[in-house]
Amino acid sequence: MKKTLHADAGWIRRRLEKINTFNDTPEFGTTRVMLTETELSCREYVKREMRDLGLEVTEDTVGNIFGAWRGREPSLAPIWTGSHIDTVLNAGMFDGMAGVVAGLEAVRLLKNAGEHPRRTLVVVVYLSEEPTRFGLSCLGSRIMAGDLDERAIRTLKDKDGETLYDLLSRLGFTPEHLAGAVKRPGEVHAALELHIEQSANLERRGKRLGLVQAICAPTNLTVTVTGRQSHAGGTSMADRRDAYMAAAEMSLTLEQLAREADKQSYTTGTVGVVSNIPGAVNVIPGKTVFSIDIRGADFAVKDAMLSKLRASFLKIAEKRDVSVELVLENHDVPARCDGRLLEVLRLACGSTPYLETISGAYHDSLFVARFAPVAMLFVPSRNGISHSPEEWTDFEDIALGAQVLAAAMLQIGDDA
Amino acid sequence: MKKTLHADAGWIRRRLEKINTFNDTPEFGTTRVMLTETELSCREYVKREMRDLGLEVTEDTVGNIFGAWRGREPSLAPIWTGSHIDTVLNAGMFDGMAGVVAGLEAVRLLKNAGEHPRRTLVVVVYLSEEPTRFGLSCLGSRIMAGDLDERAIRTLKDKDGETLYDLLSRLGFTPEHLAGAVKRPGEVHAALELHIEQSANLERRGKRLGLVQAICAPTNLTVTVTGRQSHAGGTSMADRRDAYMAAAEMSLTLEQLAREADKQSYTTGTVGVVSNIPGAVNVIPGKTVFSIDIRGADFAVKDAMLSKLRASFLKIAEKRDVSVELVLENHDVPARCDGRLLEVLRLACGSTPYLETISGAYHDSLFVARFAPVAMLFVPSRNGISHSPEEWTDFEDIALGAQVLAAAMLQIGDDA
Repeated sequence: MKKTLHADAGWIRRRLEKINTFNDTPEFGTTRVMLTETELSCREYVKREMRDLGLEVTEDTVGNIFGAWRGREPSLAPIWTGSHIDTVLNAGMFDGMAGVVAGLEAVRLLKNAGEHPRRTLVVVVYLSEEPTRFGLSCLGSRIMAGDLDERAIRTLKDKDGETLYDLLSRLGFTPEHLAGAVKRPGEVHAALELHIEQSANLERRGKRLGLVQAICAPTNLTVTVTGRQSHAGGTSMADRRDAYMAAAEMSLTLEQLAREADKQSYTTGTVGVVSNIPGAVNVIPGKTVFSIDIRGADFAVKDAMLSKLRASFLKIAEKRDVSVELVLENHDVPARCDGRLLEVLRLACGSTPYLETISGAYHDSLFVARFAPVAMLFVPSRNGISHSPEEWTDFEDIALGAQVLAAAMLQIGDDA
Repeated sequence: MKKTLHADAGWIRRRLEKINTFNDTPEFGTTRVMLTETELSCREYVKREMRDLGLEVTEDTVGNIFGAWRGREPSLAPIWTGSHIDTVLNAGMFDGMAGVVAGLEAVRLLKNAGEHPRRTLVVVVYLSEEPTRFGLSCLGSRIMAGDLDERAIRTLKDKDGETLYDLLSRLGFTPEHLAGAVKRPGEVHAALELHIEQSANLERRGKRLGLVQAICAPTNLTVTVTGRQSHAGGTSMADRRDAYMAAAEMSLTLEQLAREADKQSYTTGTVGVVSNIPGAVNVIPGKTVFSIDIRGADFAVKDAMLSKLRASFLKIAEKRDVSVELVLENHDVPARCDGRLLEVLRLACGSTPYLETISGAYHDSLFVARFAPVAMLFVPSRNGISHSPEEWTDFEDIALGAQVLAAAMLQIGDDA
């Protein structure tokens, strides 16, 4: 039954290049924000491609796109593969799109090979994985997972003040039937996602494929340190209650705790935003507000780290006679990729060396994992760069990934 | 010859309260920015007060105001006392003004006591000690010290784009004769400045007067750390080159070095401004720019600290695989108050306990010290607060300071 499948890097390239023509910033990288005219045109193009492959195209009530190749036993729960086609500002041409086109190529390969699995294979385009328009990522997959309700999408606003609800309505979707987009466990048999790595682990280790064992989930905090604003010259070192110096010490503590947790399970800690108030060269900051972003592949490790962080911050604040307030914005649970799907992917890799890895970034699969077994397949990012015009992945690597996807879907497509 | 001088706190209070009516933000503190209509009206009021005391009022080519009480031997170099009447935004009613009104009261006391010194006594109002309008402090005293030339005042612009040169010309001053405002060593016999402390040392030690031994001068640097911008989740702790974490470590090093230097001679180190680029919660900063403000009473100590700082920053940068650039904006030389003037002030304090102290903030006297012997007298700031509507100094303390000023001027006013 198993035939050798040879994906066509040229076929993939032409489609990625075509998708890349739907671009609002051709002068610098690629910008294709969800449900803009440009992205809507791109969606039409992808739907045409799906139809050209003989797929049945549907959209759910909120704009997730499904291209279904009906299986021999269409009553069985389907197999999904897919990713997203929206981008951040001035992005590259691979993040998201590689997974959609690889999914199409995988289905094409299977069809050309004369296969016809029992289960329906579906190429999915998730609505807006990037947070570009509404400040929140993974809109489509969050809604599928029941993570965003109608109240939430009536609250989310873009920069013009339009809510996600109103935008969807205006474009003919039916957000009043949001529940129709929500998936229950069992509805989807398995969901595979090919994605560019967005790190340089594969490249550094000379591997063309990565099998993701876990998808890290973010924990975000906003930390406010309050000391006493005073004169930089007139306030002696002994007398000052410097909010920023406390924040700097807390930041280095975060780094240290993340390094320790990372020894147990992949963990990162980042301070991306720091704001001193009043923010004048000659004034000791009376207040410093900073962001904390923790990613972890193991919730227990991440949670233990968070407890240590709180305790350390309080100790630093006490020592420095400042106060500290930690607001937990979110504390999300990482997803483990499904063991059996990973085993299928390992077999599908055949003799191709692969790297067992972790996804430090999160993807739609993090939310899909709430209702279906998921697995992710990484292809290399040159220099680890993404969200940049310099983002690059060789088309041959995407083709190799598409072959593995096809082989895996062929395998699980015949699951009882 | 020496009589007991009793300054009148009520006289001082009425003048400070009157000055405080020239205010662009009566709803929140006091705002009187140099050469605005409000400040010009206040200057007229102060000049009237000077004339009422029988002083000869002149202004130099750039707007410093002098109220002179001609001495018995007017060919001798005069004694100056004074401060400023401009404020920062939403300031208090004492910073600067206390020194001007105390100077007027000192002269009034001497006149009322029937004294008439050999040397001319001059109450000076320096142009714009605060950097509010042009971003540069001590404009009047800097010009007197030859620190600002015509090119510089043609370059300095306010927020409306008007240069200091044009502003002065428009108001009838004669900046084309800038040289006429520059003072040479010997032209001024001595300059005394009473100022609010802007720290809480006097208050904490229960002293009503402070004798300033040295005026700290600032050293300012802009530090740019360049690492690699990358994904907060996708970049492992081992792989990241986090510009901000390096900046945080450098900031704490500054604090440590300042504490060590402070053991030798009063020194402070402050990071007031920090800016992460791109400054997003989920992106490791690729670049961090921060300000350093070092104040020191001893230039050699400050200079040695700066060398250690550079070496430490380079070491931190190397360890973290980032680069660091330090731009030295200024590295100013502190002023020592004149030993003989300090001795005169000590005697003038009589039985009043005083604190020998350091001025961590700098004042016009820092620049006046470049052409004349200077000494500063501090009066307490409640809770050490200044540059705030909460700034407060008891009128009785200013009166006490005015008495000491008067006694000291009487003493040196008869110098040969």
